[in-house]
Amino acid sequence: MYFASDNTSGLPGPILDAITRANDGYAAGYGTDPLMDALRARIRQTFDAPEAEVMLVTTGTAANALALATLCPPFGAIYCHTLAHIEVDECGAPEFYTGGAKLVHVAGADGKINADALRDTLAQSGRGVVHSVQPAALSLTNLTECGTRYSVPEITELAGIAHDHDLPVHLDGARFVNALVAEGCTPADMSWRAGVDVLVLGGTKNGLMGVEAVIFFNPARTWEAQLRRKRAGHLWSKHRFLSAQMLAWLENDLWLDLARHANTMAARLEAGLTGQLMFPRAGNMLFATLPRDAHARLQAAGAQYFLWPDHQNDPETVSVRLVTSWNTRAEDVDRFLSLLG
Amino acid sequence: MYFASDNTSGLPGPILDAITRANDGYAAGYGTDPLMDALRARIRQTFDAPEAEVMLVTTGTAANALALATLCPPFGAIYCHTLAHIEVDECGAPEFYTGGAKLVHVAGADGKINADALRDTLAQSGRGVVHSVQPAALSLTNLTECGTRYSVPEITELAGIAHDHDLPVHLDGARFVNALVAEGCTPADMSWRAGVDVLVLGGTKNGLMGVEAVIFFNPARTWEAQLRRKRAGHLWSKHRFLSAQMLAWLENDLWLDLARHANTMAARLEAGLTGQLMFPRAGNMLFATLPRDAHARLQAAGAQYFLWPDHQNDPETVSVRLVTSWNTRAEDVDRFLSLLG
Amino acid sequence: MYFASDNTSGLPGPILDAITRANDGYAAGYGTDPLMDALRARIRQTFDAPEAEVMLVTTGTAANALALATLCPPFGAIYCHTLAHIEVDECGAPEFYTGGAKLVHVAGADGKINADALRDTLAQSGRGVVHSVQPAALSLTNLTECGTRYSVPEITELAGIAHDHDLPVHLDGARFVNALVAEGCTPADMSWRAGVDVLVLGGTKNGLMGVEAVIFFNPARTWEAQLRRKRAGHLWSKHRFLSAQMLAWLENDLWLDLARHANTMAARLEAGLTGQLMFPRAGNMLFATLPRDAHARLQAAGAQYFLWPDHQNDPETVSVRLVTSWNTRAEDVDRFLSLLG
Amino acid sequence: MYFASDNTSGLPGPILDAITRANDGYAAGYGTDPLMDALRARIRQTFDAPEAEVMLVTTGTAANALALATLCPPFGAIYCHTLAHIEVDECGAPEFYTGGAKLVHVAGADGKINADALRDTLAQSGRGVVHSVQPAALSLTNLTECGTRYSVPEITELAGIAHDHDLPVHLDGARFVNALVAEGCTPADMSWRAGVDVLVLGGTKNGLMGVEAVIFFNPARTWEAQLRRKRAGHLWSKHRFLSAQMLAWLENDLWLDLARHANTMAARLEAGLTGQLMFPRAGNMLFATLPRDAHARLQAAGAQYFLWPDHQNDPETVSVRLVTSWNTRAEDVDRFLSLLG
Repeated sequence: MYFASDNTSGLPGPILDAITRANDGYAAGYGTDPLMDALRARIRQTFDAPEAEVMLVTTGTAANALALATLCPPFGAIYCHTLAHIEVDECGAPEFYTGGAKLVHVAGADGKINADALRDTLAQSGRGVVHSVQPAALSLTNLTECGTRYSVPEITELAGIAHDHDLPVHLDGARFVNALVAEGCTPADMSWRAGVDVLVLGGTKNGLMGVEAVIFFNPARTWEAQLRRKRAGHLWSKHRFLSAQMLAWLENDLWLDLARHANTMAARLEAGLTGQLMFPRAGNMLFATLPRDAHARLQAAGAQYFLWPDHQNDPETVSVRLVTSWNTRAEDVDRFLSLLG
Repeated sequence: MYFASDNTSGLPGPILDAITRANDGYAAGYGTDPLMDALRARIRQTFDAPEAEVMLVTTGTAANALALATLCPPFGAIYCHTLAHIEVDECGAPEFYTGGAKLVHVAGADGKINADALRDTLAQSGRGVVHSVQPAALSLTNLTECGTRYSVPEITELAGIAHDHDLPVHLDGARFVNALVAEGCTPADMSWRAGVDVLVLGGTKNGLMGVEAVIFFNPARTWEAQLRRKRAGHLWSKHRFLSAQMLAWLENDLWLDLARHANTMAARLEAGLTGQLMFPRAGNMLFATLPRDAHARLQAAGAQYFLWPDHQNDPETVSVRLVTSWNTRAEDVDRFLSLLG
Repeated sequence: MYFASDNTSGLPGPILDAITRANDGYAAGYGTDPLMDALRARIRQTFDAPEAEVMLVTTGTAANALALATLCPPFGAIYCHTLAHIEVDECGAPEFYTGGAKLVHVAGADGKINADALRDTLAQSGRGVVHSVQPAALSLTNLTECGTRYSVPEITELAGIAHDHDLPVHLDGARFVNALVAEGCTPADMSWRAGVDVLVLGGTKNGLMGVEAVIFFNPARTWEAQLRRKRAGHLWSKHRFLSAQMLAWLENDLWLDLARHANTMAARLEAGLTGQLMFPRAGNMLFATLPRDAHARLQAAGAQYFLWPDHQNDPETVSVRLVTSWNTRAEDVDRFLSLLG
Repeated sequence: MYFASDNTSGLPGPILDAITRANDGYAAGYGTDPLMDALRARIRQTFDAPEAEVMLVTTGTAANALALATLCPPFGAIYCHTLAHIEVDECGAPEFYTGGAKLVHVAGADGKINADALRDTLAQSGRGVVHSVQPAALSLTNLTECGTRYSVPEITELAGIAHDHDLPVHLDGARFVNALVAEGCTPADMSWRAGVDVLVLGGTKNGLMGVEAVIFFNPARTWEAQLRRKRAGHLWSKHRFLSAQMLAWLENDLWLDLARHANTMAARLEAGLTGQLMFPRAGNMLFATLPRDAHARLQAAGAQYFLWPDHQNDPETVSVRLVTSWNTRAEDVDRFLSLLG
């Protein structure tokens, strides 16, 4: 019963196999491997974006920070949700990579930026005032940190507001695939067609060892991004092992199948939960309030999950985050539910 | 005939196996995996350093830059050889990670810092002068970028000079194991007993996928190092795959055997070369001057290696760098030599 | 009728005279001038702090950023009010100087940090969690950006909370003297005795050309601060002109008299205003809501002041910030009030 | 007998007068003062550069670092002489302001970059190689740190090489005026017409209190420069006192007269010196080797100057730097010479 995070799961067989296959022989390093050429072509095709540039790194924090550093100068402001991973969980990586930019909070229910709040915040942005940091980028997350999902029209609206203010749009897609299969649209629809300029396509939480693709739909600053990657120590010499994984992941819809399984398991979990979720489930994450005795039973049985601050201070309940993964077993879900009582 | 770099080789079987074994089940992330506990214990034992702290990252550039950032403030100076990897080949990573420290060149033949040159440079260091960056660290590389080796007494002398000036010593050990087996001493002798305060123990060039250990023999600033690692996006969620590789590498002397093989192949290559080497060979790298027609034959036969600037401008010759690896085949060495004519 | 800012006023006669006197002859540069020795002694005496170290710079932004950079590492968090000058009006200077630290907002009415809000924020600080920036400093402002004042007990309480969490306390004292004379306490009472570790004593808004003293009550990191000042280009060669001004300012209670005059003029203005102030006046700043027709009359008569966002959207009124200065004339205050109608 | 530095002198009468005049009344802050408008117009006229933008700061270090930060990205290389002030005497300010760029040394006799050395260095620059910092700017200094002067043709040649490599040219003109009057050309000839893109026009060493103008002949990145200035704490609120000084300095050829006097005094000193100068004198600086007994007599008589490293280790002599200023007195020069014996 492992619901702590989707990054506590390992790799599915085809990914391990891809690593083994990539191990044959010698390969040129630093991203010049033939597998990277194949992956680039594959991503361009998958996203219907023949001009897109792709850069691989091994963590979401690195991917986000590198993407933002190409969009935002040191004296810039990045608009993000109060609960965004880049704000809360990256130990200041965006500030480090940008050389000291500022993350400006935008409010919104359920971990999603509210369009009016974004408009209001941008209206007071201080653009043109030398004493203020200057608006530089909008950063969205999908799935959000609350497990909710921006629909395509919602992304389109927010990106439109950003573009009206000449701000490029970054999408932290650590769980992009979970959002994608839930939304049931094409990768292009949920990214550049909706106005996303740079997408972090997360593989790590969906079955890869540590592979994230930064996809620049506008390739103008790709060279700068590559220099920043090298300078940050994120350019792998044995790069073929990254390319190989993501290439195998994109083949035969594996990436979609893995995410679909995780979402299905979360739905199964949701169906068995009584009581209110903290946020509407949209993919493979649930935030639930459990009776304290059920929590005790689950802990005793070895269930793994994180407590979540809920600010209710109800001594009878505890709030928890439950994340399913590509290899979550239905029997574990059912056992979890049975222990709830 | 792949002599371009030891990082164009893949992984030996035991490392692939270790990855496969580590893939079983779930594991806590971010370096809290049990394999990391085992690895830490193993490294402490191997280096006879029960207090040492260990941090894994996936590239040598990241390892060096993180190590240096814990040793050197933004207004500090890092003393290194003119040809050091941190100066020449990391696109300014130390400057990025330290917040703008300065790398100060120290001269010396064959890629090795000369002790008198270090003394002279430190004598003019500007310590205590507010207009100057302040001496902060000495950085050595072993094997050096010229493929030469500091002996234990040489490291001891240079580290002693540094310590006399209150400077901690960083050792870039991308090819530490090649130096170690060539020197025939213990890991402790070539590191902390010789005065090294922070060692980057490189695995990537010696058979791992992308694993480097930063070993702090003085653990005082380990927490800071961990925060800097996270902030740089180098803290892996699926960290077990890094721990597992290095643990398997250290078992049964695999790390030593791999490096020994590479060195042996380089010796075989050296034995067959006629004419002068640019630098004395000490491990698995050779820098040789070849007749241009031999070079043409080798290229035609598909041999892989890098040209090296030699400043001789002799139209009849070309200078090259040849690097052997854990999986270099004797038959490839022999074929290379036969093509030299 | 100049109420735009206290920094639109020039220098009182004694300060100009001090500049002229300091101009005689030659003087050693970079803060080694004898006037700086005299000033240091004078500040130590004035603040009853014989160990304090003093560093002069020419802007409040530089003073704050340098002070914070000595207190907060790149991976640190600085707790400040949502409206703090360091957050709102310095174009990201603290982020630049610290190498990318994060400013964390703490709420509170009237521009003052609320003690419970500070406790709550620190309780969720993420200390010890590698994914979070680490608590590093508390920053207060007195007078605040809303013109209100922390009393000595209030500073003591907030600093106590900070110290309980091992955080040093920075006080942005751009208008420290206005607060001091209003509070009627000693400089020591409003600074180190209340728990302030680093004070920015602002001279520029109170009659100097551009002189701010960073006073380190704990002198441990003074040398680092001096290096950071030099590195930032804030170490003056003709430093005597800074020392001379602040020395003359501290003599014969000039600094106190100048601030007292400004406060008195603000009180005169307040006495004549009808209607509610936006914040309780505590020194030389008022935030008032004026009828739109009065505003029009004042503008027509050439009155200078800034509009202030009040979020009331009342078409009949306009909110304004009025700041008095060391040379505000009573007749201008009275004329302003007469125009209000 | 003050020959330590031209920044140990104070201000000439007209500059003090300008400060006094500027002190009348109120003035808008932060560079929006009418005197700044007048100064900008004056500089454009003086440099025959109607499009130029001008930004004032108070130290040469700040001026250089801000200028370079607008020219050079964090992953860039700045080519400068081994002895350049930005390399040797600014405690890493360029690295701080650029976010960690690298200063690459170019050799040349007498403190001047040698054109062939520049060509060679740029030929090995690593442009387009992701492991290398990328060429970003050429930085010249005139007068140089050795008191020598680049002639207009020399600047033109070096700037041409830089432009051939798409590098903009920065000129550190801390002693630009001394060079200008010695060269006997127009300000335009020694700056943009010779290929300089950004000039730091130093006032501090030539009679101002602390005023340096950064002149952007290509104004494209002026707004960025202004934001960086603010963010660095170098935007003065009482900015009129900076504008006023430089405006008075440019009037009636005062700036030229002050520099001419300094140069004349240096020529007088040179004429009386026996023995070799270390570098050919070109303006107001001399580097001379003195007999040790003469040095002792001068010290005893209170003469002020700096020792200079000469690497000759001759126990009979001592090398010194002598700098004359706008207010150096002929009688002091003569007395100095008489003491030489």
